[in-house]
Amino acid sequence: MSQQEIKIDWLGKMAFKAGVNGHEIILDAVPGVGGENRGPRPKPLAMVALAGCTGMDVVSILRKMKVEPDSFSVKVVGDLTEEHPMRYTAMHVIYEFRGKELPMEKLEKAVSLSEERYCGISATYKKAMAITSEIRILED
Amino acid sequence: MSQQEIKIDWLGKMAFKAGVNGHEIILDAVPGVGGENRGPRPKPLAMVALAGCTGMDVVSILRKMKVEPDSFSVKVVGDLTEEHPMRYTAMHVIYEFRGKELPMEKLEKAVSLSEERYCGISATYKKAMAITSEIRILED
Repeated sequence: MSQQEIKIDWLGKMAFKAGVNGHEIILDAVPGVGGENRGPRPKPLAMVALAGCTGMDVVSILRKMKVEPDSFSVKVVGDLTEEHPMRYTAMHVIYEFRGKELPMEKLEKAVSLSEERYCGISATYKKAMAITSEIRILED
Repeated sequence: MSQQEIKIDWLGKMAFKAGVNGHEIILDAVPGVGGENRGPRPKPLAMVALAGCTGMDVVSILRKMKVEPDSFSVKVVGDLTEEHPMRYTAMHVIYEFRGKELPMEKLEKAVSLSEERYCGISATYKKAMAITSEIRILED
């Protein structure tokens, strides 16, 4: 077992400054609940963690396969309950590649290796909800 | 059910730019795995989501209770497996307040309301791992 630690410091009103790997992120709420929108809401960062984790896996695996897309994005769409506590019940990951003649089977292999073997956030969240995905190729 | 969406765009090498609630966060890996440390690693953002979610709840509930600490921080310590996929198996939340004669029972009530009723991230993660917490008061 290894351990990781993060810390957030209150800045007044609803804002917090997070320290993560030596970098700072400001979190804030919307004005309607007393915030000033100085930074993102904290909850969607759970989806950013998933997108970044699997996105870095895929980039890294594709490099080893000598596949380099012109562009690559990862979207995550999360379903939330309407009642408090408003928790995530599902996340859908959309891998979107742009490039000429990208080999679909290699993209699928890279995504599958991340989902099944490498992405620790996907492995964590799978225990709490359904994680699904799709691959889209946009032609240049 | 409601839905939320985030997107990250690849910036080359291991870096991605995340768009969250109209704000940007750069994610990057360390040089050892091809990154340039332009931003935090994605995985610990899962802990920032938890800290921020419950931290905002607590600030908001304490305000209604007319309790205002001089300072307030939330730390999250996460346990990770050593083997791939390196997933979180537990998170411990440390609520750290500084102030004169802070009423412990109100701090406990605010934390408990967040943990049990309001924090959607806590409610999500509880299905995947053990979430524990403690309150520390630092005297001025």
